[in-house]
Amino acid sequence: MAKPQSSKSSAKNKTAIQPTREADFPEWYQQVVRAADLAENSETRGCMVIKPWGYGIWELIQQQLDAQFKATGHQNAYFPLLIPLSYLEKEAGHAEGFATECAVVTHHRLETAKQEDGSVKMIPTGELTEPYVIRPTSETIIGAAFSRWVESYRDLPLLINQWANVMRWEMRPRMFLRTAEFLWQEGHTAHETKEEAIEETRTIHRLYETFLRDHLAIPVIAGEKTEAERFPGADMTLTVEAMVQDLKAIQAGTSHYLGQNFSKAQDISFTARDGSQQHAYTTSWGVSTRLIGTLIMAHSDDDGLVLPPRVATQQIVIVPVTPKEDSRQAIIDACEALAEVLRREKSYGGQPLRVHVDKRDIGGGVKKWEWVKKGTPIRIEIGPRDLEGGKVCLQRRDQAANEKAFVPKEDFIRNVTDILQEIHSNLLAKATELRDSNISECNDLETFEKHWSQEMPGWLSTPWCGSREQEEELSKKHKITIRCLPIDQQDGPEAPCVLTGEATSQRAIWGRSY
Amino acid sequence: MAKPQSSKSSAKNKTAIQPTREADFPEWYQQVVRAADLAENSETRGCMVIKPWGYGIWELIQQQLDAQFKATGHQNAYFPLLIPLSYLEKEAGHAEGFATECAVVTHHRLETAKQEDGSVKMIPTGELTEPYVIRPTSETIIGAAFSRWVESYRDLPLLINQWANVMRWEMRPRMFLRTAEFLWQEGHTAHETKEEAIEETRTIHRLYETFLRDHLAIPVIAGEKTEAERFPGADMTLTVEAMVQDLKAIQAGTSHYLGQNFSKAQDISFTARDGSQQHAYTTSWGVSTRLIGTLIMAHSDDDGLVLPPRVATQQIVIVPVTPKEDSRQAIIDACEALAEVLRREKSYGGQPLRVHVDKRDIGGGVKKWEWVKKGTPIRIEIGPRDLEGGKVCLQRRDQAANEKAFVPKEDFIRNVTDILQEIHSNLLAKATELRDSNISECNDLETFEKHWSQEMPGWLSTPWCGSREQEEELSKKHKITIRCLPIDQQDGPEAPCVLTGEATSQRAIWGRSY
Repeated sequence: MAKPQSSKSSAKNKTAIQPTREADFPEWYQQVVRAADLAENSETRGCMVIKPWGYGIWELIQQQLDAQFKATGHQNAYFPLLIPLSYLEKEAGHAEGFATECAVVTHHRLETAKQEDGSVKMIPTGELTEPYVIRPTSETIIGAAFSRWVESYRDLPLLINQWANVMRWEMRPRMFLRTAEFLWQEGHTAHETKEEAIEETRTIHRLYETFLRDHLAIPVIAGEKTEAERFPGADMTLTVEAMVQDLKAIQAGTSHYLGQNFSKAQDISFTARDGSQQHAYTTSWGVSTRLIGTLIMAHSDDDGLVLPPRVATQQIVIVPVTPKEDSRQAIIDACEALAEVLRREKSYGGQPLRVHVDKRDIGGGVKKWEWVKKGTPIRIEIGPRDLEGGKVCLQRRDQAANEKAFVPKEDFIRNVTDILQEIHSNLLAKATELRDSNISECNDLETFEKHWSQEMPGWLSTPWCGSREQEEELSKKHKITIRCLPIDQQDGPEAPCVLTGEATSQRAIWGRSY
Repeated sequence: MAKPQSSKSSAKNKTAIQPTREADFPEWYQQVVRAADLAENSETRGCMVIKPWGYGIWELIQQQLDAQFKATGHQNAYFPLLIPLSYLEKEAGHAEGFATECAVVTHHRLETAKQEDGSVKMIPTGELTEPYVIRPTSETIIGAAFSRWVESYRDLPLLINQWANVMRWEMRPRMFLRTAEFLWQEGHTAHETKEEAIEETRTIHRLYETFLRDHLAIPVIAGEKTEAERFPGADMTLTVEAMVQDLKAIQAGTSHYLGQNFSKAQDISFTARDGSQQHAYTTSWGVSTRLIGTLIMAHSDDDGLVLPPRVATQQIVIVPVTPKEDSRQAIIDACEALAEVLRREKSYGGQPLRVHVDKRDIGGGVKKWEWVKKGTPIRIEIGPRDLEGGKVCLQRRDQAANEKAFVPKEDFIRNVTDILQEIHSNLLAKATELRDSNISECNDLETFEKHWSQEMPGWLSTPWCGSREQEEELSKKHKITIRCLPIDQQDGPEAPCVLTGEATSQRAIWGRSY
């Protein structure tokens, strides 16, 4: 088998991605996205084009999450893209949070004017009496529908989800993590009682936590936001916080208990069992294409993207190695046959395996490194000698790029699901190790304050019972935030608050974030 | 079994939908949409809310079409919602066709002003130096991406599809058929040769034709548009035209061969095999939520929606009939058990059966008629006597609402897939009969001109070789259009053109349309 070209450069310690994570993390991220052909910037300000390899990841996330939403009783629906300004005005308390930077539609016609030089100029005309905003989120417009749909307690609970594009005019866009337009799902539910709505909020929170762990191999800290960090208008915001390799936090998904705040503003009311008129209790929750940014930053390395197998656009790439013309067709046939067997007979996570045969007529080294940089979990090469010996050359993205094993084809087929699961587990273990070794307990203010002068500070876990103002002051001073009050750490022994010294059993996780 | 309440009214010849198709077709359509809970109008001008029962149909159309696109080598991607005005200006010839009535984004911020009465007013600020248009279609923005992606013939063909929302400022919206915002898929491909691009255009055209027939039970006339009716900028537009029950035509899907028109405007060029620089040949094609409007108008009756089984949100609804409290739980258990068996063991069109058990505590008649109006292909009732006898009461949406058959449960399970296929075939046969008995051959101008004065004229098929101007004149005069030049009728014997009398083998189909 020809030694792959770039494997040589790897021996010289040159990485496939330049710069490395250590040298320049933000630039490394951009280069990983580019090298994996996931997405690119467009001429629409702050908006990206999601290319097939990146969109494939999103399709898988969608399918898998959607099945879980449906299994928990939710139904999909679709609501208008444009929100009348009057809806936002009614909801001004809520809108203040983010809806101020958003795309405003003011005209509904273009007039074409021919210029002297023969070119065409288009001028907006047909001014609208009431402008519209492109949805930054759909609480207001879905709330208006709920208000029409709910009459009696019999109409509750209403469990609706929408897959949609939304838009916020971001000033510092970054592909997948923060773009003006992004794709997401937004769940919106209405309930008869407070308890039921809170239970829904928690159910989805747990669903997100396990989805990130079991599908994206990302171990999160699941917790509650403090009042300062809550979704505007929410009584409780639950969050899943992921640590990525520069030790920053990414808020990967949120689930909000909205109490009766929205239902009162939007008049989502119903005749209760006792005949009285009541306002419903509502929730909303969402994850977005940001999940893709999160998994890139969580798992990728200096050779490029590393994809968790469950959401890998292709899980296995088979590369025919055909040095001689006379064995070429036989090898290609063997590759296709193997792909067919894997697709037909094997599955992982309830879905048939996704297998691609790369028959392009280009150099083997170039090909190999393309698939490394694209993060494909398993690469298989079949050459003349492998074909003869009934073997395949197995390479795994969770191992060094030059590592390879020659295994009997039948063994590979038998074990392929286990190998994918092992890759998943290895990614999860590595990410868990990163997270756990970079959250330190901190009980005194001096250590706390010093900690944030480091170049790449990890997260701190502190006893905390300070006020909102005190939290905001500390946050501003150190460019940090309380990521959350971790749910599984609120019942521990009391300790003195890191700031006030008061005894508290509440613990807060602090960190820098995207 | 209690006699369903509304069944009585049916006996009195009162239909579940008022008015009937005959009395007022447009109003009947609105009432079918409402009674089936498919969608409703929103406060955003011309935009609808697609409710779960309607969105479920779209999800199935999406899944099934998407599988076919992927099987024919296409990949999904996602492109920005907003198109810079300069793109449209460059493409002015193309944009003229429809982009003049579209939503224009001119500002990116809202300023909140508190009014004297305490209310809040929001004012658009942050005027953009270059306005954006919400995509009415994405040729320009996808073309810009293709121009970046294509360098060599090795990068071709480029076979991309996008599932997205688009917006056209429609003046006379009608739910599903013509709304300002709608959901669709738009395929965009680029090819090395003219022949390959034309073959792609035809492949998708055939795919649409068979999809409508085999999934929606709609027999279309597949043909080519005349120059007057072509997509602006296309060299050839292929269309699938459905006839609905008021004998109007609905253009249900189109596939365009764009030649080098777009690739020249957008500089999609590549280094050819001989080293020269060439412009690619491109295509675009799409179907939308209009398909839902089409299937409603094609199949539904005076009792409401009739859903083709392949795209029925629920294919089977099981209703427990529980007159006595003591047998209640046993009957519900039997219903659930039957649903489980059907879901787990049976499939139709490659997807597991979609079965719903309606356990709501409301009257049996109300329940029954709800599912009739929602178009569910199969309704099953299980009451105490059925349970005892091991039978189910089977009712089918393609039969009269009061028709029922008591069949052994095991027989039903064994035959369920056949029954669904039979329902599909019955719908298709009925729609085919409607179409074929309402297209008449017409060879003389007098008959032609008279035909259109009828209240509900069918389509006419004529020998035709008139000019574009002659076509437009006739069209305007009778409020008709040439729906298409049917592909399978262009090789027949020559006959005198209905207008000019010149001998021609070209045949045109004329009709009124939505």
